[in-house]
Amino acid sequence: MVKFVGTRDIIELVNRVGIAQLFRELVREAETDFMRWPEFEKVARVASHSTDGVIELMPTSDGETYGLKFVNGHPANTRTGLRTVTAFGLLADVATGYPNFLAEMTITTALRTAATSALAAKYLARKDAKVMALIGLGAQSEFQALAFKAVLGIQTLRVFDLDKEASRKFARNMADSGLMITHAQTAEEAVTGADIITTVTADKRNATILSDNMVGTGVHLNAVGGDCPGKTELHRDILLRSKIFTEFTPQTRIEGEIQQLPHDHQVTELWEVIAGIKAGREADRDITLFDSVGFAIEDFSTLRVIRRLAEEHGLSREIDLLPGEGDPKDLYGLIRNAAAPTLLSA
Amino acid sequence: MVKFVGTRDIIELVNRVGIAQLFRELVREAETDFMRWPEFEKVARVASHSTDGVIELMPTSDGETYGLKFVNGHPANTRTGLRTVTAFGLLADVATGYPNFLAEMTITTALRTAATSALAAKYLARKDAKVMALIGLGAQSEFQALAFKAVLGIQTLRVFDLDKEASRKFARNMADSGLMITHAQTAEEAVTGADIITTVTADKRNATILSDNMVGTGVHLNAVGGDCPGKTELHRDILLRSKIFTEFTPQTRIEGEIQQLPHDHQVTELWEVIAGIKAGREADRDITLFDSVGFAIEDFSTLRVIRRLAEEHGLSREIDLLPGEGDPKDLYGLIRNAAAPTLLSA
Repeated sequence: MVKFVGTRDIIELVNRVGIAQLFRELVREAETDFMRWPEFEKVARVASHSTDGVIELMPTSDGETYGLKFVNGHPANTRTGLRTVTAFGLLADVATGYPNFLAEMTITTALRTAATSALAAKYLARKDAKVMALIGLGAQSEFQALAFKAVLGIQTLRVFDLDKEASRKFARNMADSGLMITHAQTAEEAVTGADIITTVTADKRNATILSDNMVGTGVHLNAVGGDCPGKTELHRDILLRSKIFTEFTPQTRIEGEIQQLPHDHQVTELWEVIAGIKAGREADRDITLFDSVGFAIEDFSTLRVIRRLAEEHGLSREIDLLPGEGDPKDLYGLIRNAAAPTLLSA
Repeated sequence: MVKFVGTRDIIELVNRVGIAQLFRELVREAETDFMRWPEFEKVARVASHSTDGVIELMPTSDGETYGLKFVNGHPANTRTGLRTVTAFGLLADVATGYPNFLAEMTITTALRTAATSALAAKYLARKDAKVMALIGLGAQSEFQALAFKAVLGIQTLRVFDLDKEASRKFARNMADSGLMITHAQTAEEAVTGADIITTVTADKRNATILSDNMVGTGVHLNAVGGDCPGKTELHRDILLRSKIFTEFTPQTRIEGEIQQLPHDHQVTELWEVIAGIKAGREADRDITLFDSVGFAIEDFSTLRVIRRLAEEHGLSREIDLLPGEGDPKDLYGLIRNAAAPTLLSA
């Protein structure tokens, strides 16, 4: 049998563990996996593009455990009340090839993306960062806000979205979060005085959410929304002033903000900073940019945390995704014996 | 919600529909999809190799429906009572990216592999073929026997396996199949007088199950067991005397019997024969070879048949692999509202 964690289990799990504690556990696990980054099998995601969006497969393996995420991105979905991103994931045992864990990853991807952002900021933002600007108040926004509060101790948010309804939803959801939140009238107003700027908008076009004059020295940019060809959020000039950090560079060159730059523009992979191989932020005046697009190892880490916690809290179910034990050469017997149970003793 | 068909549902479904009828439906659907082969997105499977085996992803899409199979191949598994191959699959809606069907595919892959073999033989074997030799009596063997009976009207089998236990299992499972079965003492004895030779052995090495002198004129070879680099079943000389048919040639060059031949050796894709674009068997004296390794479109077709039949027979369940409806920008609300239901009305 395969353990299964569905949407209702995840919701229950987040509430039982507490989202702040969960973010800290996700960041700790991701940190451990980023430190051993070279041990993982890494491929750019396998994409199936269509007019309306993309379906992607994100596999990885550390030689013991195999992880896979299935995820779609369909920006027009929201027009018909559907979500832009849905996902599920699985873990399998490399030695036998048997899948052993299946989980919803729509909510879980939101958790892992925010956890990865917080992990990057922990290494790249100024140590005294206190104020975060948050541009884009869609499905990912609350997760970013709460991850930065839990992991970096961010207390103050300056937020903005063109969509007033999204702003009201954010305000409602964050009412008892303990965060001090200022709703700005423009993106420019939101970023004024911020130590960290998180952009998490969803439009699939080369938008300029931030222009060059809006980004002062010392800022850490957490660019989450640009994550596929043709979808960027930052003006090119900002990139040229920043020290840029990526997850898996071959993928980020195609999908990230740096698709606007030449293919040999110097970037640093985040794992190198976490493993202590390369420098992250070197001076308070540096502008650091985490050009986040999401990578399979983050899903792998997250699935392992969810599996462990769901087990601890008794929140996983079993589903018969695989046949049970029996003579491995007698697959047909499973059908025949079910049809005529008396033959079992023959 | 996503529809789910587990192992017990598949077993029940095969017994309710009847395996012969199911094979005919699978072959009919596969035939339709092979005829429109150019409409599908085709990539070689995405493999993660390890010491003990391989985990593979097999995606495809016809622009409306996306299909994916997760499958492993671990030959040493049988030593510890596990199966060599386990699998599951899913279908998703291309327009929205939403998965809508998840199914076990361990048993289902056995069904689809046999259905594909029968489909190929329908086009490539002599019309008067009556006797099939079956070399290798492992997990796939009964499915091959029953598919060829259902689709081609094969009545007589000449079978062989080195493993006496596997032979006894096969005899037991086929006792009431209506097939005339002769158990041969050697592979050579089994193939004598056969019109179709099916090889479905599982050893992961370059074995020679059939040598050149064993294959007479007019035979159709259905080579199923060789399906990864280093795993072949036929002597190279047989290939040189045969008209060779493949599924997706770039994949077969790596995984099939033709890995023994130069990369420009002429082969015909099966879909071209089914679509009437190229010739299949041209003379009774021809030796035809279906160099089967399995391709994603076959899984796609099979999943669609299983989805339809499971629906008709009320055998699918619903699982919460995805969140339900709600404001797509309010993912966090799913967590918050579950924690404090009274806030729903606030």
